[in-house]
Amino acid sequence: MITLTSDFGSPYPAAMKGVIRRHTAAELIDVAHDLPRGDPRAAAFWLRFVLPEFPPAVHCAVVDPGVGTDRDALVVRAGAHVLVAPDNGLAMPPARALAADESDVEAWTVAVDDPASETFHGRDVFAPTAARIRAALDQAADGESTDADAVGETLAGMDDLSPASDPADIRFPEPTVERDEGGDVTAVDGEVLAIDRFGNVITNVPGDLVRGRDWIRVDGDLTPVAETFGAVEPGERLVTVGSHGYAECDVNDGRGDGAFDLRPGDSVRFVPDSVSL
Amino acid sequence: MITLTSDFGSPYPAAMKGVIRRHTAAELIDVAHDLPRGDPRAAAFWLRFVLPEFPPAVHCAVVDPGVGTDRDALVVRAGAHVLVAPDNGLAMPPARALAADESDVEAWTVAVDDPASETFHGRDVFAPTAARIRAALDQAADGESTDADAVGETLAGMDDLSPASDPADIRFPEPTVERDEGGDVTAVDGEVLAIDRFGNVITNVPGDLVRGRDWIRVDGDLTPVAETFGAVEPGERLVTVGSHGYAECDVNDGRGDGAFDLRPGDSVRFVPDSVSL
Amino acid sequence: MITLTSDFGSPYPAAMKGVIRRHTAAELIDVAHDLPRGDPRAAAFWLRFVLPEFPPAVHCAVVDPGVGTDRDALVVRAGAHVLVAPDNGLAMPPARALAADESDVEAWTVAVDDPASETFHGRDVFAPTAARIRAALDQAADGESTDADAVGETLAGMDDLSPASDPADIRFPEPTVERDEGGDVTAVDGEVLAIDRFGNVITNVPGDLVRGRDWIRVDGDLTPVAETFGAVEPGERLVTVGSHGYAECDVNDGRGDGAFDLRPGDSVRFVPDSVSL
Repeated sequence: MITLTSDFGSPYPAAMKGVIRRHTAAELIDVAHDLPRGDPRAAAFWLRFVLPEFPPAVHCAVVDPGVGTDRDALVVRAGAHVLVAPDNGLAMPPARALAADESDVEAWTVAVDDPASETFHGRDVFAPTAARIRAALDQAADGESTDADAVGETLAGMDDLSPASDPADIRFPEPTVERDEGGDVTAVDGEVLAIDRFGNVITNVPGDLVRGRDWIRVDGDLTPVAETFGAVEPGERLVTVGSHGYAECDVNDGRGDGAFDLRPGDSVRFVPDSVSL
Repeated sequence: MITLTSDFGSPYPAAMKGVIRRHTAAELIDVAHDLPRGDPRAAAFWLRFVLPEFPPAVHCAVVDPGVGTDRDALVVRAGAHVLVAPDNGLAMPPARALAADESDVEAWTVAVDDPASETFHGRDVFAPTAARIRAALDQAADGESTDADAVGETLAGMDDLSPASDPADIRFPEPTVERDEGGDVTAVDGEVLAIDRFGNVITNVPGDLVRGRDWIRVDGDLTPVAETFGAVEPGERLVTVGSHGYAECDVNDGRGDGAFDLRPGDSVRFVPDSVSL
Repeated sequence: MITLTSDFGSPYPAAMKGVIRRHTAAELIDVAHDLPRGDPRAAAFWLRFVLPEFPPAVHCAVVDPGVGTDRDALVVRAGAHVLVAPDNGLAMPPARALAADESDVEAWTVAVDDPASETFHGRDVFAPTAARIRAALDQAADGESTDADAVGETLAGMDDLSPASDPADIRFPEPTVERDEGGDVTAVDGEVLAIDRFGNVITNVPGDLVRGRDWIRVDGDLTPVAETFGAVEPGERLVTVGSHGYAECDVNDGRGDGAFDLRPGDSVRFVPDSVSL
C-alpha cells in the first residue's frame, strides 16, 4: 500500500499515480490533497493524526514550499512504515507517532540525479521514489513487509539512499501551563495547530487540562466545556476534546474559527472558571 | 467492496480507511465526503440515488450530528447490500431503494463496548464495524456474498449485532398535487431536496408532472421546460428532469440555486402555463 | 485500469463507479472531478498533461456541455491507451500526447441504443462503455493489453463501435511571436490556458521563450523570471516555467490569477526587458 498526501488540489496527484503505476501495482490510498498550501507544519499535524491508523505502508507526503531549492528528498523509516517527503520536517512528527520509540526512526536522503522539473517533484522525485521503495519491499518480503528490521535492511540496500545526518524536524509548540501553590491549573497559554473542514479550531492544549470542567474562559470569554457538540444549542460555542486528544474551540452546527476569531498559529489562553480574574 | 460516505471533508476519511485496512483488504470506493454538514436527509437523498448503481457491497455512511449522544450505530441489510450508519434515519431511504421490497430490509444495532472517542465514531465505530462485516461476509461466502439470505445469516450470526426494534427512518416529503375537475394538474407544491455542485435545484416533484410541457411557472415566473440544458441560451433558466427522475430548477451554464433563490428545504410551487392565474 | 475525469463534483462519479463495477473489477483511478464546469478545452489541457504519465489504460473523461443533444459518444485509441469521451474534441489533445504519431490515433462512435437519461450520460453511456472496453481488452489479452495493435483489433471487433469519420478536435491556440531583424524575440502574444488550485496562470507560451531571462514584461509590468517560487519574496509576482513546459504567471505564496488579473482565455503579452517599449 502507498498513501498519498499533498497540498496539490487536482489533477496533479493523478500524475503521481500514473508514475507510480509504471513501477508497482500496489494499492493507492489518498490521505488528503487539499491540505493548507505550503504549510509543512499543518501536514505534519494531520499525518501524525491519520497515519497511525494504518497498518505498515509507504506514505508519500508532499507539502513543499521549497520545491526547486536544494532541500533534500527524505526517506524515513518508522517501525515498519516508510515516509517519503521533502526534508522540511513534516515527516518527523508522524514518524515519531508510528515508531515504537525514538530509536526506531531512521532517515535517508534520496540521490536525485535524473533531471527533474523545477516545480513538480511530487511527480518527478517523490512518487517514483515511493514506488521503487514499495516495489523493493514487496520483492524482499514477498508481500509481507511488516517487520521493521526487514524494512530497514531493504532501505539500507537501495543504491540511491544515503543515511541522512541531520534531517529537518518540526516540533509542535508546547503550551505554557500556570499553576497555583496547590498545583491546580490557573491558566494555559496554547496555540492553534489546525482548522478542519468544519471550522473546528484544534489547539496544542492537551485535553486533560480542560476535560471534566463545566466552563472555561477562552481568551476571556466564558465557554461551556462538553464532550459532544449536541450538549449546546446550534450556533453556540463550546470547548471539547477532539479525537486527537487536544482541546478544540468549536461551534455546534457552525464554525469555531469564525466565532472565536482564531487562525493557525494564533495564541489562545484558557483560564478555568474557578480562577478569579 | 466497501463504499464510504461522509460529511467529513479531509483527511478524516483516510483515518477510517487505515482502520479498515487492519481488518480487510477489500476494495474501498468513496461515494462522497463533502456532503452537506450534519444533514442526514441530504445524505439519504444522495445515497438513494447512487448506491443502487453498485453490485452488492457494504456501505459505510456517516453523517452524524448526534455523535457522542446515545443514538445507536445501525447495520441494515437491504437485499445483498449492507449499510452501516448512525441510527438517525439516513440508511433507510437507500435501503428501500436497494431492497426488492420492504420485507427485504433488516436492521441491527451494534454493541459499542470498546471505549470510543466522543467525536469520531466514523473511525472508532462505523469503519471497524463495516470492516468486520466485510471480512465476515467474505469468509462466509468465499468472496461471493451476493445472496441476500446468506448475507442475512452472516449478520445474524455476529455477536455484537442485536435486532433493532425501531430504527430511525427518513421519509422524504411528498408534493401536494392540485387537479381540476377533469383531473388535469393545476398546481404542484413541492420542496427542494438537494442542490448539487452545479447549483441545480433538485425538488421532490416527480418528473412526470412537468415532462412534455413547453413552459411552467416556478413560484410565479414562467420558465421553459426542456430535456437538455442546451435547449436554452447560456445564463437562461429552465426546468428539466434530472437523472434521479425529479424536476430540477436549473440555469444553463449557471447556478439554479441563485437564479431561483432556492435552498434545501424551501417550498417551490409549479403551475402549468395553461392554468389561468 | 480505468481512469475517471469529469466536472461532476460529488457524488455523481460514484454512480459511474457503481456501474463500472457491474462489468469489471478493474482498478479505478480518479484524475479529477472538479475540472472547470462545461469546459472541454480545460479538460483537454489537463488530460494532455496527466494521462501520459500512466501506463496503457482506459480513460473515461466526461466534460459535456452538450449532454442530451445529438453529439456522439466517442472512443479513441492512442497507442495502447483508449479514451472514452463525448465527441466535443476534448479527447484529441491527450490522444495526440499518448500516441507515437498522428497515424497512431483511431476513433469510433458508440451506438447508444438503450434509453439513457438526458442529463447523466457519464453514468448511462460513458461509464458502461469504458467498462465494456476494459473487460474486452482484459479478456482479449489476458490482462496484458499493452500492445497498440491488439487494442485496436479488440476495439474494431466490438459490435457497438463504428469508425468515426470526423471527430471533433480541440487545437490549442498558438502564441504569436514577434522577432527583430536579428531573429531575437521582441514580443509574444499568448493566451491563458488554465488556472490551477494555487491560482497559477498557465499560458500557451512555450517555456523556452522566457527561460534564462532575468526579467520580462507581462502586459507591461516588469516581472522577475525564476526557476522556483522561492526566488522571490512571499507575495511577490514571478514568471516561471511549469512542469507542463509553459510559461506561468505566479505569485510566491499567493495567487497569480488575482495579481495578474488573468482568467482562462485572456490574452497576455510577454515583452523581454531588453526591448525598448
